[in-house]
Amino acid sequence: MDPRQLAARVGEKMYAADRASKDFMQMELVSCEPGSASMRMVVREAMLNGHDICHGGLIFTLADSTFAYACNSRNHATVASGCSIEFLKPAHLGDVLTCEGAEQILQGRHGLYDMKVSNQRGEVVALFRGKSTQVSGTVL
Amino acid sequence: MDPRQLAARVGEKMYAADRASKDFMQMELVSCEPGSASMRMVVREAMLNGHDICHGGLIFTLADSTFAYACNSRNHATVASGCSIEFLKPAHLGDVLTCEGAEQILQGRHGLYDMKVSNQRGEVVALFRGKSTQVSGTVL
Amino acid sequence: MDPRQLAARVGEKMYAADRASKDFMQMELVSCEPGSASMRMVVREAMLNGHDICHGGLIFTLADSTFAYACNSRNHATVASGCSIEFLKPAHLGDVLTCEGAEQILQGRHGLYDMKVSNQRGEVVALFRGKSTQVSGTVL
Amino acid sequence: MDPRQLAARVGEKMYAADRASKDFMQMELVSCEPGSASMRMVVREAMLNGHDICHGGLIFTLADSTFAYACNSRNHATVASGCSIEFLKPAHLGDVLTCEGAEQILQGRHGLYDMKVSNQRGEVVALFRGKSTQVSGTVL
Repeated sequence: MDPRQLAARVGEKMYAADRASKDFMQMELVSCEPGSASMRMVVREAMLNGHDICHGGLIFTLADSTFAYACNSRNHATVASGCSIEFLKPAHLGDVLTCEGAEQILQGRHGLYDMKVSNQRGEVVALFRGKSTQVSGTVL
Repeated sequence: MDPRQLAARVGEKMYAADRASKDFMQMELVSCEPGSASMRMVVREAMLNGHDICHGGLIFTLADSTFAYACNSRNHATVASGCSIEFLKPAHLGDVLTCEGAEQILQGRHGLYDMKVSNQRGEVVALFRGKSTQVSGTVL
Repeated sequence: MDPRQLAARVGEKMYAADRASKDFMQMELVSCEPGSASMRMVVREAMLNGHDICHGGLIFTLADSTFAYACNSRNHATVASGCSIEFLKPAHLGDVLTCEGAEQILQGRHGLYDMKVSNQRGEVVALFRGKSTQVSGTVL
Repeated sequence: MDPRQLAARVGEKMYAADRASKDFMQMELVSCEPGSASMRMVVREAMLNGHDICHGGLIFTLADSTFAYACNSRNHATVASGCSIEFLKPAHLGDVLTCEGAEQILQGRHGLYDMKVSNQRGEVVALFRGKSTQVSGTVL
């Protein structure tokens, strides 16, 4: 199968079973391509913390999901081993957050992916870096 | 006010307004002390990803919340500037995750906090490090 | 002054005083441009550790120097607040390591820079991310 | 052999071959114990950068060396896969920097170690976290 078709199918299959991203967080899977992905979510009331801004963990979760689709997109089952995030701007109620990112390197079973979370004005809300490790098995 | 009493009150005030941690994630605030905190959550069906394990972002969110209570516990309004996490073991449906952690250093407006997430068998699920920056204002 | 000329002058001025990069590590400053830089060094016998490979700290030092030139290139005195590195391949005696990298974001006084260290065969040896903070003063 | 004796011998063997730490950086190996280590170095003129403070990469190198002794101390050959550092205070000419740190977790072949670099006044200069991976072979 063509790598782009494969990535799209992997994305669909993962998303259908991904209760956390789809149902709980209500993220939309915008694209899943070979080595990259994009997802979007709206900041809802339920996502606000005691400072009345979006909980940073939920911004991280958007980036971590997008990273998961990107690093599984070649149909090798892959998990995150570690991640870091820099928070640059707060996100507020109603903000539409889009995360986009791609593989920076894939060597053997280990990969490194950079993700950027932006708001509806194009401002960068957070930068995320994830390290992946392939495990046995395939997604499809 | 005594620092321990102050920390406990800050925790209560933040938790009451923290829709993300309290209502959405259903975390319990176990303790909020000067420079440290502990929180607990159960892995629910809604938190599972396409690999049928707890979404790493939601494990991060537990740690990030606990970090937020620890770094605000002295009643100076404080936000996260960046965080990193290492995922050591997957968490499964029904697992009870406890996060505990404390300030490692506080210099001027910048602090560094280490958090450990463990499951009900005492196994370490993730290690988290957060950097904080004090902003103007107080919590109470 | 033109931003490119300014960056080149900042690079020259910093390099002349940078005993660690120039004399001790024997790095070459390949370029210093607005928001980006490149440096090169050869792995010498003195840089080997007990596993007979280049000490990871010295690979980090190459990336950290390059980051310093990139984040000072606009002539605002700037220091590193924190950095992370992923080591992907060992470097051996005689390897020629080149580091290149650029600003990913600059918001207020805080920036984030990504650096890539490659060997003479174009293989990626390490990926580095640095966070910068502007302090008062200028370089020139 | 007793684990403490084993760690001490591993330390001696590694240090004897560690040209970077011993000869180039002139670090002293203060102790090598099971899962922990301590090293010390003086900031020399050669280590200063263009801001006239100790190059951050060389502070990292002290922490990275100490981490290497700690994670090899059980005589399984082990390398760094990734590290992060937060710089808290600059170090100046003549400062005596001591790094101490220990294993936080060791699971299978992967470990996580925290290192603290302090100056002669006991002020914390940097906090470092290193991730290790065991490879095949032993040190002795």
